[in-house]
Amino acid sequence: MRIEIICTGDEVLTGKTVNTNFSHMSQKLEDVGLAVRWGTTVGDDREALIEALRLAGARADAVIVNGGLGPTVDDLSQEMAARAADVDLVLDESWLGRMEDFFRRRGRVMPPNNRKQAMLPSTAERLDNPVGTACGFALDIGKARFFFTPGVPREMRRMLEEQVIPRLLARGGLQPVIRLKRFHSYGLGESHVDALLTGIEALAPEGGVKLGFRAHYPQLETKLAVRGADAADIERKLAPVVAELRRRLGNFIMAEDDETLEGVVLDELRRRQGSLAVVETFTSGQIAARLAPLLGAEAIFRRGTVSRDLAEIAAALGLPELGPLSPSVAEAVAEAARHAADATHGLAVLIELDEGADRIEFGGTIHVGIATQGGAVSRRARMLGGRDWVRLGAAELALDGLRRHLKGLPIAERIDFEKT
Amino acid sequence: MRIEIICTGDEVLTGKTVNTNFSHMSQKLEDVGLAVRWGTTVGDDREALIEALRLAGARADAVIVNGGLGPTVDDLSQEMAARAADVDLVLDESWLGRMEDFFRRRGRVMPPNNRKQAMLPSTAERLDNPVGTACGFALDIGKARFFFTPGVPREMRRMLEEQVIPRLLARGGLQPVIRLKRFHSYGLGESHVDALLTGIEALAPEGGVKLGFRAHYPQLETKLAVRGADAADIERKLAPVVAELRRRLGNFIMAEDDETLEGVVLDELRRRQGSLAVVETFTSGQIAARLAPLLGAEAIFRRGTVSRDLAEIAAALGLPELGPLSPSVAEAVAEAARHAADATHGLAVLIELDEGADRIEFGGTIHVGIATQGGAVSRRARMLGGRDWVRLGAAELALDGLRRHLKGLPIAERIDFEKT
Repeated sequence: MRIEIICTGDEVLTGKTVNTNFSHMSQKLEDVGLAVRWGTTVGDDREALIEALRLAGARADAVIVNGGLGPTVDDLSQEMAARAADVDLVLDESWLGRMEDFFRRRGRVMPPNNRKQAMLPSTAERLDNPVGTACGFALDIGKARFFFTPGVPREMRRMLEEQVIPRLLARGGLQPVIRLKRFHSYGLGESHVDALLTGIEALAPEGGVKLGFRAHYPQLETKLAVRGADAADIERKLAPVVAELRRRLGNFIMAEDDETLEGVVLDELRRRQGSLAVVETFTSGQIAARLAPLLGAEAIFRRGTVSRDLAEIAAALGLPELGPLSPSVAEAVAEAARHAADATHGLAVLIELDEGADRIEFGGTIHVGIATQGGAVSRRARMLGGRDWVRLGAAELALDGLRRHLKGLPIAERIDFEKT
Repeated sequence: MRIEIICTGDEVLTGKTVNTNFSHMSQKLEDVGLAVRWGTTVGDDREALIEALRLAGARADAVIVNGGLGPTVDDLSQEMAARAADVDLVLDESWLGRMEDFFRRRGRVMPPNNRKQAMLPSTAERLDNPVGTACGFALDIGKARFFFTPGVPREMRRMLEEQVIPRLLARGGLQPVIRLKRFHSYGLGESHVDALLTGIEALAPEGGVKLGFRAHYPQLETKLAVRGADAADIERKLAPVVAELRRRLGNFIMAEDDETLEGVVLDELRRRQGSLAVVETFTSGQIAARLAPLLGAEAIFRRGTVSRDLAEIAAALGLPELGPLSPSVAEAVAEAARHAADATHGLAVLIELDEGADRIEFGGTIHVGIATQGGAVSRRARMLGGRDWVRLGAAELALDGLRRHLKGLPIAERIDFEKT
């Protein structure tokens, strides 16, 4: 099945908005084993839009169109869909009612120009939008089935998941039940993990599991896409693959599915009624900024101290002058931070940066100290790759070190980003 | 002149990489008054790529192709360009020499597969790439002039700016000298600024100045694109518009061109040999994370303290128990932070969040306190819009408040994001 995506809108065409809707749609299709063959971007322009619809309708089996379903005059998708399919626009009374309700529930009267959103091509099959006033719809143009979706990301995502993908799977004759199992890791590069997981897909009885990756430094997402007849079938296929994947990636798996590293750390602390004090130098508050704003963090994240200067950190924590950076200094700072804030855990991330201008070989030596009432441990790592690369890597190394410590895992397994 | 962009590569087509190259190119063209009419995305696929080239060659006057110039087997742009133009690929000896030099200077021998990057269509005009081994080139396919550029963003950006845009301007018969003047503001929405600047373009003698915006909450970028015969002509056109723009936006202009708000704050502190201590609650280290990692910040950003809990902040600063949040509490905290770190300036950003789950009406009351040896001032603002919206807005409000204070401007001008 040949699938295309058409993105519409001046904001996207002129680059004012980066087109994350396209990458989201394409990834979601990829995750269920559907490949996008072609992408087209056009503006809010009748001539260009109808040309795009006709070209795609002549080439593809299925086309997702994104954007242009809003209430304003530059929203042209319904009009051009009707014209390309050579049918009339007709008022969908039931959608109009839905929209009037939508406004009424918010204590407002529907502006008259929203009525336009209920005008659909006469042959259209409605695609429900439970979170907005833009009505999605499907219809045939040329030899392709077209799916029109709203440009608002939240509305598009839900409609894609609930309305469009099931229809595409059915058209492709693919098993309708799908699941995407995700693992988040830090420290192993994509090609390394790919090599570690060689042959893992074959462990699924009768196949049906597809391995994929998405790298966004410093994290790597490892994905297993599974298709089956029903939930039990999917579980049966997935279980042996997941078990083996967990065995091979081991301690490097920081979080799964919608979990985040910082969320896992916070949950571990919450579980033991713990609390945390953090000291940062060149990470500059980034670690605090990932933990402290989370829901419920006010009771757990007790205090963060940021300074680029070790003497200043010593002063803030009431420590005597600190010697040059070393494992014992990192441990002493973590313990002092823990003590000062009366927390169960102290985390210190102290970094010695290379001298000179930013460059690709620019590096830093990172010391992570973790203290509890029972004592302190530390881990040293040297990273190269420029200021931002070192800073992002150090924040991840520290949070992952704390996760490992909380989980009773070794905190100092060698990672691919480490040099010397 | 009808311009199209073709982006190639499986990473982009499958959404693994968000296509920021497209938005960058389109914005850069827009900035010089050239509009992109159509965008196409295809994968590393011979059939799709040649179809995309032919379609664009039949429709457009000029086409920018991005990606596919690398050394690996899935880099197909030279091959497909030659096929679409019906010419041979020939070895460009001088580019081969450039590449060999490139590797030699890095103490490496050129791998044999890089030779492929010097194979160009026989009719190609070379587009220089001073920062990489991918050779850009231009040639005619159909009725359009095609410009092939590398997928590596750094290389593409330079080639676009130095090689492609001047050629496009010449083809379009447009004045070749261009300048983009940018202003960064916080607190006024795009439509508000647009209204404030009504008629401003007309102040340029004989026109030639185009106003544009790019909103990325919480900041707004206001752009003046100018075209002229030479630098003096541009200056003459731009001067009256810039003067009037500065008058109308006044204190809301935080930074210009490549400056950032945090950079301006740091420069102001550096200029007076000042130093800074920061206290954050719900902004959670975000303010520190913008200032402290900057080059040279180690001498200026003295200490940051982060906690969601006012009592903890009082303990960290050695203050007696603080009452409920108020202007005087914010001022006292800023002064205590300044004093504890022996800094010239103290900044406290204290936030009282609404109760309950995150939602669009979720808000917070923000108190910003600024202290110097001469005394303290503060500013209160209430914002609505969800947890992230409030957090981002508060960080900006605080940094902008400090900028205003350092510049001797009123720190409490009402902004559009403020409620009640």
